[in-house]
Amino acid sequence: MVIPLVPVPPPQVFGANTDVGKTVITAGLLRAAALQGLRASYIKPVQAGSPSDAVFVSRHANVGAAAAAAASGKPGGVAPPLCRTSTLFDYTDPVSPHLAAERDGGKIASDTEIVEAIVDEVKAILSSGGGDSGGADDEAEGDAGSPTTPQPSSSSSSSLGSLVLVEAAGGVLSPAPSGSLQADTFRPMRLPVLLVGDGKLGGIGATLSALESLRTRGYSVLGIALLAQDKHLGNADAVSRHAGPIPVFELPTLPPPDVPLEPWYDDDATARGFQTLLGGLSERRVAEASRLAGMKARGHRALWWPFTQHDQLSEGKVNLLDSAYGDYYCVADVDEEGGKGETRVSHRALVDACASWWTQGAGHGNPGMALAVAEAAGRYGHVIFPGNIHAPALEVAERLVEGPGRGWASRVFFTDNGSTATEVAIKMGFRRFLKDRFGLSEPPSKTRLSVVAQAGCYHGDTLGAMNVAVPSVFNRGQHAWYQAKGLFFETPNVSWRDGCFNVAIPTPMHAAALTKAAEVELAPELMLESRDAAFEFGTRDAGALADVYRAHVRSKMDEFEAQEGAILGSLLLEPLVMGAGGMVFVDPLFQRVLVQECRARGLPVIFDEVFCGLWRLGVESSRELLGEDPDVSCYAKLLTGGLVPMAATVATERVFDAFSGAKADCLLHGHSYTAHPVGCAAAVEFLSQLEKSSVYPGTGGRMSDSWDEQAVRALSRLPAVDRAFALGSVLAIEMKAADRGYDSHGAVDVVQRLHESGVYARVLGNVAYVMVSPTTPVEACEGLMATVAGVLRGLGEEGGVGGSGKADSEPDSVAYSI
Amino acid sequence: MVIPLVPVPPPQVFGANTDVGKTVITAGLLRAAALQGLRASYIKPVQAGSPSDAVFVSRHANVGAAAAAAASGKPGGVAPPLCRTSTLFDYTDPVSPHLAAERDGGKIASDTEIVEAIVDEVKAILSSGGGDSGGADDEAEGDAGSPTTPQPSSSSSSSLGSLVLVEAAGGVLSPAPSGSLQADTFRPMRLPVLLVGDGKLGGIGATLSALESLRTRGYSVLGIALLAQDKHLGNADAVSRHAGPIPVFELPTLPPPDVPLEPWYDDDATARGFQTLLGGLSERRVAEASRLAGMKARGHRALWWPFTQHDQLSEGKVNLLDSAYGDYYCVADVDEEGGKGETRVSHRALVDACASWWTQGAGHGNPGMALAVAEAAGRYGHVIFPGNIHAPALEVAERLVEGPGRGWASRVFFTDNGSTATEVAIKMGFRRFLKDRFGLSEPPSKTRLSVVAQAGCYHGDTLGAMNVAVPSVFNRGQHAWYQAKGLFFETPNVSWRDGCFNVAIPTPMHAAALTKAAEVELAPELMLESRDAAFEFGTRDAGALADVYRAHVRSKMDEFEAQEGAILGSLLLEPLVMGAGGMVFVDPLFQRVLVQECRARGLPVIFDEVFCGLWRLGVESSRELLGEDPDVSCYAKLLTGGLVPMAATVATERVFDAFSGAKADCLLHGHSYTAHPVGCAAAVEFLSQLEKSSVYPGTGGRMSDSWDEQAVRALSRLPAVDRAFALGSVLAIEMKAADRGYDSHGAVDVVQRLHESGVYARVLGNVAYVMVSPTTPVEACEGLMATVAGVLRGLGEEGGVGGSGKADSEPDSVAYSI
Repeated sequence: MVIPLVPVPPPQVFGANTDVGKTVITAGLLRAAALQGLRASYIKPVQAGSPSDAVFVSRHANVGAAAAAAASGKPGGVAPPLCRTSTLFDYTDPVSPHLAAERDGGKIASDTEIVEAIVDEVKAILSSGGGDSGGADDEAEGDAGSPTTPQPSSSSSSSLGSLVLVEAAGGVLSPAPSGSLQADTFRPMRLPVLLVGDGKLGGIGATLSALESLRTRGYSVLGIALLAQDKHLGNADAVSRHAGPIPVFELPTLPPPDVPLEPWYDDDATARGFQTLLGGLSERRVAEASRLAGMKARGHRALWWPFTQHDQLSEGKVNLLDSAYGDYYCVADVDEEGGKGETRVSHRALVDACASWWTQGAGHGNPGMALAVAEAAGRYGHVIFPGNIHAPALEVAERLVEGPGRGWASRVFFTDNGSTATEVAIKMGFRRFLKDRFGLSEPPSKTRLSVVAQAGCYHGDTLGAMNVAVPSVFNRGQHAWYQAKGLFFETPNVSWRDGCFNVAIPTPMHAAALTKAAEVELAPELMLESRDAAFEFGTRDAGALADVYRAHVRSKMDEFEAQEGAILGSLLLEPLVMGAGGMVFVDPLFQRVLVQECRARGLPVIFDEVFCGLWRLGVESSRELLGEDPDVSCYAKLLTGGLVPMAATVATERVFDAFSGAKADCLLHGHSYTAHPVGCAAAVEFLSQLEKSSVYPGTGGRMSDSWDEQAVRALSRLPAVDRAFALGSVLAIEMKAADRGYDSHGAVDVVQRLHESGVYARVLGNVAYVMVSPTTPVEACEGLMATVAGVLRGLGEEGGVGGSGKADSEPDSVAYSI
Repeated sequence: MVIPLVPVPPPQVFGANTDVGKTVITAGLLRAAALQGLRASYIKPVQAGSPSDAVFVSRHANVGAAAAAAASGKPGGVAPPLCRTSTLFDYTDPVSPHLAAERDGGKIASDTEIVEAIVDEVKAILSSGGGDSGGADDEAEGDAGSPTTPQPSSSSSSSLGSLVLVEAAGGVLSPAPSGSLQADTFRPMRLPVLLVGDGKLGGIGATLSALESLRTRGYSVLGIALLAQDKHLGNADAVSRHAGPIPVFELPTLPPPDVPLEPWYDDDATARGFQTLLGGLSERRVAEASRLAGMKARGHRALWWPFTQHDQLSEGKVNLLDSAYGDYYCVADVDEEGGKGETRVSHRALVDACASWWTQGAGHGNPGMALAVAEAAGRYGHVIFPGNIHAPALEVAERLVEGPGRGWASRVFFTDNGSTATEVAIKMGFRRFLKDRFGLSEPPSKTRLSVVAQAGCYHGDTLGAMNVAVPSVFNRGQHAWYQAKGLFFETPNVSWRDGCFNVAIPTPMHAAALTKAAEVELAPELMLESRDAAFEFGTRDAGALADVYRAHVRSKMDEFEAQEGAILGSLLLEPLVMGAGGMVFVDPLFQRVLVQECRARGLPVIFDEVFCGLWRLGVESSRELLGEDPDVSCYAKLLTGGLVPMAATVATERVFDAFSGAKADCLLHGHSYTAHPVGCAAAVEFLSQLEKSSVYPGTGGRMSDSWDEQAVRALSRLPAVDRAFALGSVLAIEMKAADRGYDSHGAVDVVQRLHESGVYARVLGNVAYVMVSPTTPVEACEGLMATVAGVLRGLGEEGGVGGSGKADSEPDSVAYSI
C-alpha cells in the first residue's frame, strides 16, 4: 500500500483493553484542550455498537463559552470552538469490529480504506482550521505549520493551536473490521500514541503487555494515562517502573456507573489531572521535535557514511529517517525557522526504490519479523555454534539445501555477509581443486592460483573479494594490497536498446569467431526476439554463438595457464546480472558455456548469488534460468528478508569432503556470530512469509516480473536512454552520457529528479536503477514505472543529461554508490 | 543466578489477565488428568489473598474414586491418587503480589527464591512418585523418566504418568513480590506454557498481547485455552487466526457466579473439553520431543560447523541448545531408547564459559534486549545508511566517540564484524599514511606497504586480516592467497608462573639489549611484584627494560625498511591481550613503546579492540591501561551485548580528512546492512543496561576483575599448569604439554572435564580459557574458579596431560578452536 502520512501526525489513543476508560480520558483531554482555547477534534475510525463514543465525547468535551472563558482567565473573551467529532466506520453490534462488520452484512472496510479515511479526515480538519467554525480572530492566527501540536499549558492563549485525537477501538491488538490487528492496521501512519492503561486489579500486566505490542510495531508512545481505582492498587507506580522514559499519568477515580460524569470532569482534581496530562504530552512532543532538530548537525559531526564523499554532501541533502513501513521511508523534515521560535517537524514518505541496498524482501516494519527476532533474542540471545545445534540454524540450513540447493547441495556454512560468503566460497573451491589436482591443501611452490571471473564483477569490499575484480576506482587507491587475481572475461551483455533486445558482443570474441573453431561471421550486436528468448537454450546451445563463446573461453583459459606458474582454480560467477559492476545483464548462454568449460577442466563452480539469489531476479536460484548447478553458492542480503546481516555459503558434499582429515584440515574460518539465532529466526520467518504470499511460485518456479516488459522496452526508446532491462524486481537504465563508470554523473539527474518525486533510487555511474521487494505489489511497481518514465521523458525533452547538461556541476548528494 | 532447570519441565499456566478463569482451567485440567488415572499435582508459587487457589483446585480436582473408576471404564479399579497442591509464598492482601508482599511487612521473596522453591517442589513431587500416596501398583510402574508428560488420552491407563501444573498469579506481566514481572521471574526455568486467554469482550487483544510478551521472553507456548462467553464473541477463532501454530481450545461458558461449579465440571461438554485440552497439550509435547529427537541427525547432515573437524565429532558429542539464559545454555538431551518406544527429553544446564565466542555482555535471553531489537525491527527494519541518519545509529556513534573514543576520536564508520572492522582500519591507516608521506592515495610504484604487528596476532578470517599474521595452520592450507604483509614483533609476555608474576623476554631482544642503545644485561625472565605492577608506567617508562624494547623496535623497523621498496604504513595492535593467538597477555610496557615509536615515524596507530574493548578486560578501552591513544580503533563482539553482529571502526578527524576530495576519494567500502537499526538498538540497549549496572565504573574507569587474582596465582602453582593470567572477564591457563599451538591437544583434557562438570569452555592449542560476561556476578565466578581449580588439581594428581597422557588418542569434540 502507499504509505499515507499525515504531515504532522496527531496522537492516537489506544487502550490496554476494552473498558479501561479510553473514551473518558479522550474526552477529558479534548475538554482540557478546549478550556485552554485550543481547537479540539475527535476521530473515531471504527465504532461498534451504540451510543457511539463520539456522542460521549461531544457531550463532555464541548464546554460552554462561559466555562472556557472563566477557565482561561479572560472573562468576556472569545468563545472557544466546539469540539468537532467524526465517526468514520460505524457498525451496529457492540462486539469486536471484525465480527460487527461481518454481521452488518455490508462491505467490510479494508485496512487501507480505514487509514485513508483517517488521513482524509485529519487533512480536512487541518484545512478547516482545526475544528468547527471558530472565531475569526483565531482563524487569522491559524497555526497551519504545527496545528496538531498541543501547546504547553503555559503558552499564551492567543497563540491558538489545536488538538486532534484519533481513538482506536478495544485494545491494542483488538481486530479491525478486516480481521487484522488494530495496531497493525494503523501502523502505516505511525501516529504517536497515548496508551490508556488499566487501573484495575491485573491492569499492570495488561498495560505493560499492550505497551510491548506497541513497541514491537515501532510506535512511539508519548505517555500512559490510567484511571485510579477506589482501592489504591499502585498500578501507575508499577507501570511507571517498567515503562522506561514514558511518563505515566494517573487520573482521579470515576464515580460509580449510575452517577453522571459531568461533575467528575468539573472537579478541580480531575481538571488539574487532564491539564497535567495535556501539558505532559505536549512536552514530550516538543522534546521530540528538538531532538530531531539537532540530529542532522550531530550526524554530520560523528558519522562516516559508506560510499559517500562528505565534501559533496550538505546538511540539507541528508535524510532523517524517522521510521519506515513496507516499501517506504518516513522522512522527518525539521523547520527551525517557522517563526515564533518554534521547531516544526513534518513527515514525508519516500519510496525505498533501492530496496535498502538490495536487501529488502519482507518490507520495513513487518510485525511478524519483529516478533520472530524478539522471540529468538528472548529464547537464545546468541549461542556459540561450532559443534552445537539450535533449531533456527538447522531450519535455515535445511531450507537452503532444499530450496536453491535442491539436487546438488548438502552443506550449509554460515557466514557473515556477501563479501565473506564469497571469500569462504573461494577457500572451499580452491581446497577442492587443490585436492583433486595435486592431492594437497596448499598450492605447489612457484604456482599462483587464480579464479576465472567476469570483467565487470564485484564480489564485495573485503580484500580477498576485492582481488577478484579488475582494477577500478573501487580498489585502486582504496587498498594498498589490491592485486587482481583472476582471468577476467569481458562479457557479452543483453538489454533493450531503442526497442530491440540486443546481445552486445565484446570485440575480443570477434577474433575468436573468425579465427578459431566457430568460423562464423559475427556482428557486434545480435538481436533476440525478446528478453526471455535469451534463456531458450534448446535452440541457442547448438547455435553459432555458442560455438564462438566456447572457442573464446577455451583459448583465453589456455593462454592464461600458459603463463609460468599460473593455475586456474575455480570459477566465480555472479549469475545473470552483475550488480555493483553496473547492473549488467550478461548473456546467459555465455555464462552457461563458461560453467561447462570450467567444469570440464575440473574447476569448482561458485555462484555468487548474494545479489541475484533468493527471488531477487524472480527465481529462487539462477540455476533455474541458467540450467547449470554450481558446486558452491553464496546467499546474503535477502536471506533475512532485509532485516539483519547473515549469510550462508552452500556446498556439495564433495566440497565438504575436501576438508576432512586432521584437525587443522577443517575449514578454519569462523565468525563470532556464526548462525546467530536472531538472524536465523529472521530468515525462517521471511522464507515462511514468502511461501505464504500470493506471488510465491513454489521452489524452482519463476515469479511474475515486477516490471512490465513492454514498459521497459518503451524506456529504451527514450532519447536520454542508452539501454534498459528488467528482471525480477530489478530495473536498470543506462543513460546516454559522455562518461561512464563510477565517476560518471550521467544518471545523477535522473536519481535527483526521482528523489524530488518522492522516490529514493541510486546510481552506479551512468546507470540508474530502481529495485523493490520481490513481494511489492504490481500496482506499486506500475506507479513507480510511470514516475520513472515521466522523469526520463522530461530529461529527453531538455536535450541530454549528465555528461552534457550537468557535466560541469558538482555531483549531487544522491550520486553516491553502490 | 544459577539456572535452576527442572530436567523434565512441567507446564506453567499463565493468564492473559486476572479473572480470565486461570484457576478454573487449571483445576479442570488436573481433574481430567486424575480421571485418566494420572497423578495430578498443583503448585501455586505466589498467592495474594484468600481463599487460596490451592483450596479451589483441591476442591475440584480431587475427584472421587468412584467417579474416576467410572470414567476410566474400569469399575472396581484402583482409586486414583489425590491431587497434591502446594502454595509456596502466601500473602494476605488480594492485590498485586509486589504490593501484597510489601504490606505483609515480612521479608520479600526474591525472584531466585521463588524459582528455587518451585524447582524444589517439582523435584519433591517427582521423587515422591508424582502425587500423594497412590496405589502400590502404580508406584511400581512409576515413570520417572518422563513423569510430567501427560499421556495422550488414548494411552493405556495402566501406563501411569503425572501432570504437574505451576500456576502464575494475575497476568503474564503482573509483578512478582520483588516487583519484577512474573514472566521474567519465571524465565530461568522456561517451563512450557499454557496461556489462559480472555474470552470476554476485548479479550482477543489482551490474549494476543500476553502471547507476544511470552514470545518476547522466549517461552514455548503449548496452547491457549479460554472460557467461552454466553454471547459468542468469537475470541477463540480470532485468537487462533493470529497465534500461528499454537492450538486454541475453547471451554464451555461458566455458570453465573452464585451457582456452584461442580456440576459444570461434571457436565459432559466440560469434561470432553478438558480431555481435549489435556490431549492437545500432550500431543504438542510429544511432537516437540520427536522434533528434538531428529535434530542431531539432521544437523550432522546439513550443517558445516566453523573451526570444526567433522571427522572427529560424533553425533553424541554435539549439544542441542534448546534455549539459553544469563550465563547458561539449556541443553536438551534426547533418549529414544527409554523403553516403551517413547522419546524422552531432559534438560541440562551448561555454563557458557566461552562467552559464546567472546561476545556476551548482556546475557542470554535478556528481555530488555529482545524488546529493543523488536522495537527497531518494528520501527525501521533495515534502512540504507549512506547520506541518511537514524536515531539508533547516531546514538551508537556518539556513545563510541564519547566512550572509548573520548579525547581522540570523532568519526564512526559502521562495519560488519571484527575482521572487516580491521580491514577498514587498515584502509584508513594506509590512506592517512600515504597522504602524509607521499601526498598520494596509492603506494608509489615498486613499493610494498606493510603493517607493524605482533607475531602472535590474529585479526580475523577475511583474507586482508589473515595477511596480518605469521604463517600458521590458520592461514597456510586455508587460503591459497595468503601472504604475510607485516613486520611481526615477537612479544614479551606477562603471566603468573609457579606463583610469580613474570615477564618472558623473547631471545631477539637480548641481542638488542647487549649490542644496542640500552646496554643492560637481561635475563630471559624478569619478575614483577604483581599483575598490576605491569601497568605502573610512572617507574617502568624510564627503566632499563623500556630502553631495551625501544632499541629493539627501532632496529627492527630500520632493518625492515632497508629492504628495497618496503614501507611500513601503520601499526596494527591487539592491545593488552592477543586473543585467538593463544590468550597471550603482552607486556604493556612493550606495547606502549611500540605505539610511541610508530607514532614518531608517522605511522597511524590502529587498535584492534574487537576482543579486548568495551569492558572485556575490565576497561572501556585499553587506552585506559596503556595510556596511549590510537588513531583508529575497532569494536565488535561486545558492542551489541552479544546479540547480533555489528562492528564499528572509530577514527580521528585527521584520518577522516584523508578521504576528502573527489567523489572516488571517499572510502569506497560499504556493507548492505551498514548501521542496521536492529544492531544499533541492541548496542544502545546494552550500553544503557551496563551503565545502570552495579559493576559500571563510569567511562574511563576500571571494573573489578571477574577472577580473584590470588586464585589465579594459585592455579599457576599447580603441576599441570605452565602459566596463568586473568584480566577483566578472561581467565587463561596454559597447560604443560609436549606440543604447543593449534594442533596441540594439551588443554583438551581440561576442557573435556570441565564439560563433564557442566562448564562449556574452549581451548586454543594448549591453552584453556574461561570467559564470562563483564556483568557476571562475582559469586558465579568464584564457583567457576573452584570448578576449574578442581579439574586442574585432578589432572596434576594423575601425572600430566595432553602431550603425555592423551597424546595418542583422538582429540575430543570440545577441542575445536577458537
